[in-house]
Formats: sequence, structure tokens, C-alpha cells
Amino acid sequence: MSLLARLKSTSDLKAFSRDELRALADEMRARLIDVCSRTGGHIGAGLGVVELTIALHAVLDTPRDQLVWDVGHQGYPHKLLTGRDEGMETLRQEEGISGFLKRTESPYDAFGAGHAATSISAALGMAVGRDLRGEDFKVAAVIGDGALSCGLAYEGLNNAGHSERDIIVVLNDNEMSIAPNVGAMHKYLTSVQRNSLYNRLRSKIGEIADGMGGKTGVPGTLLRKWEESVKAFLTPGVLFEELGFRYFGPIDGHDIDQLVDTFAAVRELKGPRLVHVITQKGKGFPAGESVEKWHALPPGHDPSTGKQLKASTANPAYTAVFGKGLAELGTLDPDVAVITAAMPSGTGTGAFAKAHPKRFFDVGIAEGHAVTFAAGLATRGVKPIVAIYSTFLQRGYDNVVHDVALQHLPVVFAMDRAGLVGEDGETHMGLYDIAYMLAVPGMTVTAPKDGTELLALLRAGVEQDAGPFCVRYPRDVVPDAVPDLAKIEATPHATWEVLRRGREVAILAVGTMVGPSLEAAETLAAEGLDVTVVNCRYLKPYDELTLTALLADHRSLLVVEEGTVVNGFGAYMASVVERREPSVRVVAHGVPDRIIYAAPRKRQLANCGLDATGIAERVRALHESEAVAG
Amino acid sequence: MSLLARLKSTSDLKAFSRDELRALADEMRARLIDVCSRTGGHIGAGLGVVELTIALHAVLDTPRDQLVWDVGHQGYPHKLLTGRDEGMETLRQEEGISGFLKRTESPYDAFGAGHAATSISAALGMAVGRDLRGEDFKVAAVIGDGALSCGLAYEGLNNAGHSERDIIVVLNDNEMSIAPNVGAMHKYLTSVQRNSLYNRLRSKIGEIADGMGGKTGVPGTLLRKWEESVKAFLTPGVLFEELGFRYFGPIDGHDIDQLVDTFAAVRELKGPRLVHVITQKGKGFPAGESVEKWHALPPGHDPSTGKQLKASTANPAYTAVFGKGLAELGTLDPDVAVITAAMPSGTGTGAFAKAHPKRFFDVGIAEGHAVTFAAGLATRGVKPIVAIYSTFLQRGYDNVVHDVALQHLPVVFAMDRAGLVGEDGETHMGLYDIAYMLAVPGMTVTAPKDGTELLALLRAGVEQDAGPFCVRYPRDVVPDAVPDLAKIEATPHATWEVLRRGREVAILAVGTMVGPSLEAAETLAAEGLDVTVVNCRYLKPYDELTLTALLADHRSLLVVEEGTVVNGFGAYMASVVERREPSVRVVAHGVPDRIIYAAPRKRQLANCGLDATGIAERVRALHESEAVAG
Repeated sequence: MSLLARLKSTSDLKAFSRDELRALADEMRARLIDVCSRTGGHIGAGLGVVELTIALHAVLDTPRDQLVWDVGHQGYPHKLLTGRDEGMETLRQEEGISGFLKRTESPYDAFGAGHAATSISAALGMAVGRDLRGEDFKVAAVIGDGALSCGLAYEGLNNAGHSERDIIVVLNDNEMSIAPNVGAMHKYLTSVQRNSLYNRLRSKIGEIADGMGGKTGVPGTLLRKWEESVKAFLTPGVLFEELGFRYFGPIDGHDIDQLVDTFAAVRELKGPRLVHVITQKGKGFPAGESVEKWHALPPGHDPSTGKQLKASTANPAYTAVFGKGLAELGTLDPDVAVITAAMPSGTGTGAFAKAHPKRFFDVGIAEGHAVTFAAGLATRGVKPIVAIYSTFLQRGYDNVVHDVALQHLPVVFAMDRAGLVGEDGETHMGLYDIAYMLAVPGMTVTAPKDGTELLALLRAGVEQDAGPFCVRYPRDVVPDAVPDLAKIEATPHATWEVLRRGREVAILAVGTMVGPSLEAAETLAAEGLDVTVVNCRYLKPYDELTLTALLADHRSLLVVEEGTVVNGFGAYMASVVERREPSVRVVAHGVPDRIIYAAPRKRQLANCGLDATGIAERVRALHESEAVAG
Repeated sequence: MSLLARLKSTSDLKAFSRDELRALADEMRARLIDVCSRTGGHIGAGLGVVELTIALHAVLDTPRDQLVWDVGHQGYPHKLLTGRDEGMETLRQEEGISGFLKRTESPYDAFGAGHAATSISAALGMAVGRDLRGEDFKVAAVIGDGALSCGLAYEGLNNAGHSERDIIVVLNDNEMSIAPNVGAMHKYLTSVQRNSLYNRLRSKIGEIADGMGGKTGVPGTLLRKWEESVKAFLTPGVLFEELGFRYFGPIDGHDIDQLVDTFAAVRELKGPRLVHVITQKGKGFPAGESVEKWHALPPGHDPSTGKQLKASTANPAYTAVFGKGLAELGTLDPDVAVITAAMPSGTGTGAFAKAHPKRFFDVGIAEGHAVTFAAGLATRGVKPIVAIYSTFLQRGYDNVVHDVALQHLPVVFAMDRAGLVGEDGETHMGLYDIAYMLAVPGMTVTAPKDGTELLALLRAGVEQDAGPFCVRYPRDVVPDAVPDLAKIEATPHATWEVLRRGREVAILAVGTMVGPSLEAAETLAAEGLDVTVVNCRYLKPYDELTLTALLADHRSLLVVEEGTVVNGFGAYMASVVERREPSVRVVAHGVPDRIIYAAPRKRQLANCGLDATGIAERVRALHESEAVAG
């Protein structure tokens, strides 16, 4: 019987010998590699924290003690140990085990996690809650070194260090978040690992001692005493110490003995304390133990080599098309600069970075800074493009409003992963950007119907001097063959495109919904219902002329969008049309106002009625109700 | 002729003697106190940076060199020196001088500033833009110590320190942002002022030296050499040094000689450098030189004593009503906790803090942390209320979505300053919260018509276990006499209140718009037009029964709200009604989709048509168009 199978609860770990804990680590690593070879998933972070996870559960009294993971990618080994070993086969599948931490999934998941750097703040809340209610348990937050580039982590540290609460922060330092880290904090951590401040000082001590020794013969014992007293002030974690934490480390994150012993000692202390653990992302993965490439595995690769089993034959992803076009744009226009918040690969900006390294800025997991930094660039005549996921731009919303829009600065927001994101699930959904961007005065909001239009809108954003500009596109492949950017002209400002002319019902389709709307129109035409299909590539400002024309010869509009139905483009159009031509009915058809969980993107679209079948149904219903009303 | 009047441009400062610069400081301080006694304004911060401002302009080559202020409250002396002395009489008035920095107001205002902690990110953008375009000028960002509790400042430091760009950060350390500072960073800065790490080490050096001297007679010169070499590693700014900055200071921020000499020396260097300046907020203000009270002065106080000239006879502000009720709620319910992000006075939470200090948390200017911390509290059975301005909650939007709403945690958001904020102007407008909150799944969104209902909704938020809950209220006085909270019952969930029954047109009024809507209805009744007025205190979930009833006997609805007309409650209702009863027309009437600048709140409301006159006009127009259509 495997060790994993023997484990009924995490408390059983306390009876395991150190050798058994090490064997358990090997077993878990093999299991993770095997499972993820079928399910895909973010395996690298998990492989790096196998021993760390075992040690934390072995020392803490979980789930009574609250263990708060960050980002959630790190959570796979935690899931294996907390009753979800069997379920792992359903990882990231519809109604399966979530790819992230999730409170409703297990009492061991103390706090949901998908975005980075939330764990310290949440854990501090739990520690304070415990104290307010007179309870007695431990709270530990795990945070990656990459997340330390995020202001939220700093805000959490700053408050926790000041609080003097009983709270443990485990810094999981793998010198890499998704991409290699950036920023001074990263340099600092590297220097901590090399123990540099102390080492530099020690070499100085040596110099001086030599000087003294030569002249005075200071005894070695006194110098050692001196050295110790200096060292007390210069632990490698001086920065954390100055923020109010007792610092322990750095320790080897793959050494079960060191981990268990350190956590056991630290558990017994009080006050804010930080354990600095050095791990290796992707440790044990056969295909090589590091690189960004293994951050997330697609399903279907060979577990022994890590090689993808079959090459995809589909069109390139929007991300790839954007990335290629962006690099070309950088060549055409020397003023274009690109900013990413720790996602050079995820946002497809690698090609630009390679071609134009001086104009490429990876600012770390610092979305707010990314936006305000871009605003600063824009004041100097640079044309910044912030490449960011829709869900992460929520972190820079105030910067969008306050630093960009209020000053009408020409910053382009390339919002990737807008809409339904498939297996990443609820934490990464890009469903709110239409609502929160439409509300911003002076913001141009756009969405392309295909890859070519994505680049045309990108050119428009950079060239039209229209102030702040955003373009949203999905986690999907493009439906078209995309020419080089140089051959694509900027989309004219505030224009729509009537793709099919019909009567009575017009479908106003946004971005990804243009294709299925045309398909629906074909089906409906075969049934004798001839509808208009419009590509509403500019959501704001909208195309006044085309809208006026549509209102003149249609009785109803169905607005179809891949975003929340509450206050999306449909609601915007409804309120506009109510003002202009109230006799025309406007029905919004988008993602329903509830949390959407992980499933294949196609299934999510179908479930929301956002495919050709669903759209056709809505048009039929609308047409019939109009017929009754008429 | 006064020195200020002699100043044609900031370059003239270079010809001033040090004595003249000091005299100029006195003159500016007197001018500021005099002007603000009439105009009101945020005088404390400005009085603290008079010498700092003079020194920066005297050393830098502004406006060619880019000087980026933070928050903007600090900007009054800067405005005096940069051609706006005369205009200061119109400070914070309609079409007058802005209370903040503003690019369109002066070429000396390199970057707009209203919210805290943006300056380093923006300045880094400018420095990079300069380098990309091969230009040659200096960039300096001023940031207050209070803003260092904000993650954005840390993200900026982390990136700037790493960048090795030529950038100067001036840390204006007055040991106080608006309220006294909180957090470990504050403790750290205090210890830096006391030079603690170095002092601690020096005392150790002394001990050891004594020991050595006793035994070996180490010569004093060697020990001094030792000491210097240690000191080189242990500047008081070790934390900033570790983040990649060369640190200078702390220096006396009211000593012109020290300031000018330090900036002159620092200006000639390259790379990221930080000058730590100690200032005294409110310096020179006769009423006492510190306290939170003088952060912002209302107009009309005696310049010689700082005393308010006439007491206000109006009703208490919503903020005050909230604050009193909150303290009472804390007494009734021992599980209630309150969180503020550095605004204990601004949000009226002082009474709660005094009565229930253990359940009150000022987290510093750290809105993201405030929200995630509250989520952590909520997981432990605490009932957190985050008291925050609408405009600042934009900084915690991702935390609202990701940490609170996706986990359906019962966190209450008390959103003060929602709507038009008067003289604070565009940077502080609370116009987007309805749009961004309605889009969040599972979020209950409410707005009270008066002070009593504010407390009733507050009780509802805490008692109804409805998951995330927000209540928005304005920067205004309440229209009613408000009883003690204990006498007020929670507003029933998802209910509206029909305040007046009429025909044909129903006004759906949100919060502050209920009063003027009733007034408009009176006017219209006198004209023979009898309208319905509904208090839509729950925006989401809305009152389905009441809406259904309204749809049955009205031909049109006018939705009136103090928030952006794009995707506010009006758009939401339009899309709902289009689905349920398309024959009823829904017209949204809110704040137009453009930037609203400083003016008295009453004027702003009137300009937007959001007073009784404006509402009546819209109803008339709607009624007439219906008559035509009918």
C-alpha cells in the first residue's frame, strides 16, 4: 500500500518517520507528474513545494491551524495530502478538482487563491479574527518570492510585522515566479542567499583585523565575539527584520529534516516570523527542472520526457498573433514600448522583448505600477502598450482611472484572456472588463472578431491619438489566417462593420461572438428568418451612423458578448437605444450573473448560450415575442 | 515688492541668496495661511514643504526637469512658485486653481496627482521615456512617508531601484500622512531617524573597543577607520539601499542650506537615489503645528487663530451619522470590526476606534490589503466593515472580486464620498462604484435615501448574511434627524420603497436622488403630471415584486442616480426591463460620461441635471415624447 493511500488525514503524518516522509515526497512527485501528463496543469510550482507541503502539514495541526497558500498553483501537493488524491484525475475539469485553492472544496483550503500575493493579508485577517474571538490556533501563509514584487504582499508584510500577531510567513523562494523575477527585491533575495551584507562586512572585518593583527595582535576570540555581535544585527533577512518579522533561513526546501525541524521550532514562538525556504521550481520533472515553459502543461504529454504527444493543428492563439504583431509593430514604430506584469510568455510579448529589449519592461507582479509607469512613459511621447490579462487589470483599475484616463494619456491596454478562460476557472475569468472599462470617461473600448482585426485595432490604438484605448481578446485560437502587421491597416475609429444584412432582428456581436453570430444567422436563414449581423468592434465610442441606420429598419437588437450580462455592452446599448429610439427593443445576451467555474471553454460558451446554437435560440425567442407584441 | 511677486520663473530662484530664499519661505507660508483661510483646502501638507519646494525648484531646472508630486495636497507651495500665486484665490473653486496637481493647469505639473503613492511609478516612466528618446533632464518624485504604506509606492521603488535609471526620490517624512502613520515601515522610518541600526552597532563597537583597548591598546585611528567602514554598510537607509537606492539623509526639511546643498550634490549623481527629508506637517500654522484636524481646512476661519469663524447649522454629514451609528453597532454586536485605509477621521470611524479599539484597524494607505484582510477576518466569523471612499475602493477592486465575492464572504463596504465630491474635483469623484460593483456576482449593492436608512442598510449588511454587501453614500449632510442605531431596524433584503404613487412615469431614484425626485414630483403635480417616486435602496438584487407592479401600470421609468450614466443602475434597469416588459421605456439619468471638475457639490449636481429642476425637466421631456409616441 502506498504511503499516500495510507494517509487518512494530515495528522497521520506526525507518526511517519523522516524516511517515510522522504519516500512520501517521491511518491507524490511521481503521482503529480503522472496525473498532470493527462490532465495538464500548472505543475512546476507544485513539484517545487512537495517537501515544503509535507513538512507544513506534519508540523501544523491542519485544518485547525490555518494554512494559506498563495496563487494556488502551489496547491497540488497540498491537495494530494488533504483527501483529494483520487480526485486529482479530474484536475481542472468540469466539476473536478480546481486548479487553485478553494474553500468550498476542502476544509484544508483556508482561503481561495488564484491571483498572487493575497496570502499574507488573508492570513493576518485570520490571525486577528482568532485573537478577537479568543481562539487558539496557528496561521501560516505561504508566499512565493515572485509575489514579493507585488505591492499587496508588501502591504501585508507591513501590517503583519507591525501587528505583533502570532503569524508565520513562509517565503517559498524559487528565484522565479512564472518568468524569472525582476526588481530590486529579487536582487535582494539573491544577495540574501549569498548572505552578501554579512559577507561583505566579514571581509571588511578580516581586512581590519589583519590591520589590527599586524599592529596590535588582537586575539582571535575577541574578533570572533565581535563578528558574532555584528552578525546579530546583520542576519540575511535584515529587510524582513526591519519590517517587524523574526527571520529564519534560508533553509533548503527539499530537505525534510531541515524543514520539519525549523517549522517545529518556529511554530512554538510568537509574533510575526518569516521562514525563508529555497526551492527549485519543477523539481523532479524529467524534461529539465526549470523553465517558464513548464509553468503550465497542456494535457497530453509523455510523462517520461515531458514532450507534447501530438502537435496542435489548430490556428495560432490570439496571444501568439498579438505577440507576433507586436514585435512587428515595434519595428515599424520606434516609439512603441511594451509592459508586462510578470507574464512575458503568457501575454505573448517574448518576441517583442527579444527584438526590442530596450523597449520591453517586465515590472513583476505589479499591475498597478505597470499602469502608472505606462502613464509616465506616455507623458514623454512614448507609446506604451500594457499587455495584461483582463482579470489582472482589475488590480490596476484605479491607475487606469486616475493616472491614465483623467489625464487622457495615450496608453493602450491589450487585455488578453478576456471572457471565459476554460480550465483556469473562476479566479481567472475575464468577465468584468467591459463593465469596468465602459464606465471610464474617455476610454476607447474595442474587441476584434479575429486575429487580423486584433492587429488592426492594435494599430488603431497606437496611431489614432485617441487617448486611453483598450482591446480585449480571448483565450482561444484565431479563426483566420493573419497577414503581417505591415499589411494591416488601422481600424477606422468608432466604426462597426455590417457583415450581413437582414430584417427585423439585428445581432450586435462583440469580438468572439461575431463568428458564432454569423453561423447562427446561416441557420436562421435556412428557417426563413433573415437577420442582420454587425461586428461591434468599437464598444465605445460606438458607431453612431451605423446604429442610427440599424434603428431605422429593425425592430429589435440582440447584443451578444462574452462578458457579464450585468452592465456589459448590452446594457450600455439598451440605455443608449432607450434614449434614441425606444420602439426598438434591445436584449442583452452575455455571461449570466453568477460565478463560472472551470470547464473547457467550449462547454462554458455553450452553457452560457454563447455559441451559434444558443444565439440562434435567443434570436428565435426574440423574433417570436416581437411577432406576438406586433 | 514681495519676493513672490519678483519671481518671473523658477529659474529666478537660482539668483536668490540663501537669506532671500528663507524670506521667501516666510512670505509663502503667510500667503498660504491667508489664502486658505478664505478658500479652505488641504493646508497642512503644503505648509510642511515650503522650504522643500523652494529648494527643489532652486536646484532643478523646472519645468524641463520633471518634478512629480504625490497626492497633490503637497502642491500648494509649488503652485505659488510656478505662476499661480494670483490664481490661488480661486483654489478649489469652479474653474479655479485645482486643489491637486494637474497637467492641463501648468507645464510645471508634470503629472496629475490626487491619490497617494503614484509619483515613483510615474517618475520612473518619465525617466525611461527620457532615456528611450535620448533626452537629457532630471526626474524627481516627491513622496510622503504615509504613502510608503501603499503597495504601489513599494512597486515603484522595487522597479526604480532595479532599473539603475537616473531618478531622484524625495521622501518627505512628516511622520504623518493624514492620520498618524501605521505599519512596520513607519516604525522603520522612526528608527532611521534615531539612526538606530548604526547607533546600536556603534555602541557595540564601543564595547568591543573597550575590551580590546583594555587588553591590546588598539589605536583610536584604526577604530575610527573600522567605524567608518562599518558605517558605509549601515547607513540609516539600509532598507532603501537594499532596494537599490543610494540613500541620503535624513536632513532637516526646514533648513534651506541643508536642502539646497544636498539636492545640488545629489542632482549631479546618476542612478536611483533617495533623499530622506524630515518635515513638520502644518509648520507655521498658528493654531498648533500638527494634528489631523488641519489636514483640510473648511473655508472661513480666522487666519490668526485657525478657529472656524461660524459654526455650521446644517444637519450632520453622512460621514458623521455613519460614524456614530458604527460605534453603536460595535457595542450591540461584539463581532463587528472596522477597517480603514489611513482615513479614520475622513470616514468617521474615530468614535468606533475609541469605543472598540481592539476591533478597529487602520491599515495605512493600503486599500487592497484592507479588503483582503477583511476577507480573512470574515472567514473566522468576524463581521468586517471596510469604511472607504468610493474613489479609493477602485484600488481594491480585484480584492473585492477575487478575495471577497468569489468566496461569497460577508464583508460590508461602506463607500463614503460616492457621487460628486465638490471641491476635491476629478481625482476624488465617486462616480464609478455603481458600475463596477453591479458587475460583481453575488454583490449586494445599496444606497440610502437619508441618514436613518444608511444605518438601516448598515444593519442589513451586517445581519442578513447576504455575502458581500456595499452601501454608498455621499459627501453631503443628511436630510433627516437620525435616531440611535438601536432604534433602527435593518432594511428588508432586496426591497424598494414606493414613496409616491402616480401614473405613466415612475422615477426610480437612487440614494441622494430620492429627495430631489420627490421635490420634482411636487412641482410636476402642480403642473398636472402625477408621477410615481420609488426609493431603489437595493440596486442589486433589485425588488422584483415592486418592479413588476411598476411595469404593469407605467409607460416609462426614469432612473436617476448620482453616478456615471454609462453602465450605472439605469443601464442595468434598462436591460432588465427590455427583457421583462419591452413596452415600458427606461431612461437613465445620471452623471454624464465626461470628467467632472471641481465646483461646489450643489453646482455639480445642478450642472448634471441631478436636482429637482433637472429631474422635473427630464420627466417632462419623457412624458411628452411618450405622448407623441402614444
